[in-house]
Amino acid sequence: MAKRQLKLGAFMRPVSLHTGAWRYPGAWADANFNFAHLKRMAQKLEEGLFDAFFMADHLAVLNMPVEALKRSHTVTSFEPFTLLSALAGATEHLGLVATASTTFDEPYHIARRFASLDHISGGRAGWNVVTTSNPDAARNFGREDLLDHDERYRRAREFVDVVTGLWDSFADDAFVRNVETGIYFDPARMHVLDHKGEFLNVRGPLNIARPVQGWPVIVQAGSSEPGRQLAAETAEAIFGAANTIEAGRAFYADVKERMDRLGRPREHLKILPGLFVIVADSLAEAQERRALLDSKVHAQSAIASLSVWLGLDVSSFDLDRPLPDNLPETNQSRSGRERVIEMARRENLTVRQLAQRLGGYGGLTMIGTAASIADEMEAWLESEACDGFNVMFPYLPDGLFDFVDKVIPELQRRGIYRLAYEGSTLRENLGLPRPANRFFD
Amino acid sequence: MAKRQLKLGAFMRPVSLHTGAWRYPGAWADANFNFAHLKRMAQKLEEGLFDAFFMADHLAVLNMPVEALKRSHTVTSFEPFTLLSALAGATEHLGLVATASTTFDEPYHIARRFASLDHISGGRAGWNVVTTSNPDAARNFGREDLLDHDERYRRAREFVDVVTGLWDSFADDAFVRNVETGIYFDPARMHVLDHKGEFLNVRGPLNIARPVQGWPVIVQAGSSEPGRQLAAETAEAIFGAANTIEAGRAFYADVKERMDRLGRPREHLKILPGLFVIVADSLAEAQERRALLDSKVHAQSAIASLSVWLGLDVSSFDLDRPLPDNLPETNQSRSGRERVIEMARRENLTVRQLAQRLGGYGGLTMIGTAASIADEMEAWLESEACDGFNVMFPYLPDGLFDFVDKVIPELQRRGIYRLAYEGSTLRENLGLPRPANRFFD
Repeated sequence: MAKRQLKLGAFMRPVSLHTGAWRYPGAWADANFNFAHLKRMAQKLEEGLFDAFFMADHLAVLNMPVEALKRSHTVTSFEPFTLLSALAGATEHLGLVATASTTFDEPYHIARRFASLDHISGGRAGWNVVTTSNPDAARNFGREDLLDHDERYRRAREFVDVVTGLWDSFADDAFVRNVETGIYFDPARMHVLDHKGEFLNVRGPLNIARPVQGWPVIVQAGSSEPGRQLAAETAEAIFGAANTIEAGRAFYADVKERMDRLGRPREHLKILPGLFVIVADSLAEAQERRALLDSKVHAQSAIASLSVWLGLDVSSFDLDRPLPDNLPETNQSRSGRERVIEMARRENLTVRQLAQRLGGYGGLTMIGTAASIADEMEAWLESEACDGFNVMFPYLPDGLFDFVDKVIPELQRRGIYRLAYEGSTLRENLGLPRPANRFFD
Repeated sequence: MAKRQLKLGAFMRPVSLHTGAWRYPGAWADANFNFAHLKRMAQKLEEGLFDAFFMADHLAVLNMPVEALKRSHTVTSFEPFTLLSALAGATEHLGLVATASTTFDEPYHIARRFASLDHISGGRAGWNVVTTSNPDAARNFGREDLLDHDERYRRAREFVDVVTGLWDSFADDAFVRNVETGIYFDPARMHVLDHKGEFLNVRGPLNIARPVQGWPVIVQAGSSEPGRQLAAETAEAIFGAANTIEAGRAFYADVKERMDRLGRPREHLKILPGLFVIVADSLAEAQERRALLDSKVHAQSAIASLSVWLGLDVSSFDLDRPLPDNLPETNQSRSGRERVIEMARRENLTVRQLAQRLGGYGGLTMIGTAASIADEMEAWLESEACDGFNVMFPYLPDGLFDFVDKVIPELQRRGIYRLAYEGSTLRENLGLPRPANRFFD
């Protein structure tokens, strides 16, 4: 029997997710306003047969202390739809997943833009559905009071329902274009949505033909209770946040069991945890790279963040020595705190190094050679901790190039990664069915 | 002294503005969901050294009787930002003007998308600022009651002010990216807008660097009194609607005099009337093409529209004979009615032909050989009836290809059209200054 196949997204910010990455030797520090760099990276991802370029997004300049803000390359970035549409022309197979919030936008606009991106790209669009709770974003849209968590999720659910309903405005065969009779489309194959709901009133129809994929692929990231349930009901890919293989297996089992109870086939949703990868020709070299990368993080800001994280003023400790033993108890989350302390002890990190590690990127990381990383990825796949990963590169472009040149061939050798794209759409590559139109056969 | 130079935009719907165009021999009737066709047309426009691809837009399926609707190719189209961003990658010089409404969108989104398009295209974005009064569009955005005309214009003015303010969030030199010190940008060179107005509250800053052009080029189409005044104050190009050279001269003089009174240099605003062009190797052949094109318009729908236009039930007339003499008086606008009747008499059109002419395209038209069309265009330019045109092609792609292959060389021979692009940005090609940042030197 053929082995299960890894699916791979690339979770991208133009200059990397890591806060110190723009200072790493060889970094393209201006990639957040230099399209040529983005194009080159997307083409390399396609060479590596990645399923999708997954564009992160924020609706504000992130609210952080000015000492941290002025060191952050995330203050400026491309807008996802314009970026991904431009990348559509520079690639042929790569999926294009845009983050778009249900909190401060209109479903008619969102439905239209994704449908347009899907037509332009020949069926490669995906929607990372997020809600926005950042108060600074709210103030960019004239809102002073944010929706509470439950309201945000109820609105998100209604919003997705309206958007998918708008995508179904026309049957696939609506456009007859009969030059002889002069009939361009069959009005009986057009549906007026006429949605009236708790948060949204949207008449429709959408003024664009049904997307090539029927619906662009629906991606979610929620890990809260309502987030998991919404995902089990409606998502086709989840951008997961498990930090360990055990947490990954528990999350995977929980979401897939929710699908079982809903009568949804398990393979209709791909769980892709975020994964930060540092690959080199030896473990020692990879560790050196990580140490160099972490050293680019602003220590003072990172120490302030670590203090918040641990619920302790760590700036009073000796920054060049390990964390003291017998740290006082605090009100912080025990498991998160213990994970951090355990990591610091295991790697013998000084307080400063620990702060810089977490200030750079603190989530699931695989570090080592192509073979050791492929071992770990395979273990996750085979033990049903994931269906693949959303890969985050530590620095760009080299981290991405190294992954494609070193890790991908290793995954292919093991028979757990494609040798060529399976289909022409993102759906076909991910192995997802094309949704039926809810209004038409 | 060098002659004044014509500026040329191409006012585009993917299948043409003309309602019968999709049935014309050789038409690309599926261009509204076939990106390859749009790419080919944009590249041909660039070969013809056009200033800009100007994308028309609507926020709804247009409300028309079903007999007309089902014959209309405008029911489906690409969304402007995704389309133009994809075209940015397929072209190097062509300006990319997106229609975006101030009525049903958020200034933060609009500012961000245009800034992103401007960065992606290397400074080729333009914004066609419109207000939306279509009640069907309102219902796609949960609004039952439309703003009245004055409110729409007040909101538009405030909206443009907020968007341009957001574009100025960062000084051009804000991003220092000093790898040694770790400073990515200078917070003293970032401005928080903190706008609180009649219609909009927007904090800012925008999370993208200042556009390459400072601001994308601001285009407007308003011909009403508040529309002209807003344009004289803020527009850099006007999409005009003059039907005759006399009307063109009057409009031109009025707007430029408003600029004089405001102390704005006249050359900072280009007036580009919409112009429908049918070119062939002889006038007779061009007229045959127009007759064939008009014959593709659905007569019944067109006759219903002509009845409304004239304020008379024309379906009771003999459709294959000219309009009867001594038409009864009605309450319709006298000048519009007389213009239509005069055109019918001059060209000896039957009632059906008149209806199909107006149902296809009823505005300013030039028809004939490349030489005769260039004569007319030159006369408009030299008599200060325009600074150029927004050209509309009768059918696509052939109408566009013919214009580039036949009319453009004729304009160049006369020394009134460029032989190469003057600059690298839309602004530079149009001869418009780069706006100063209102918050920073």
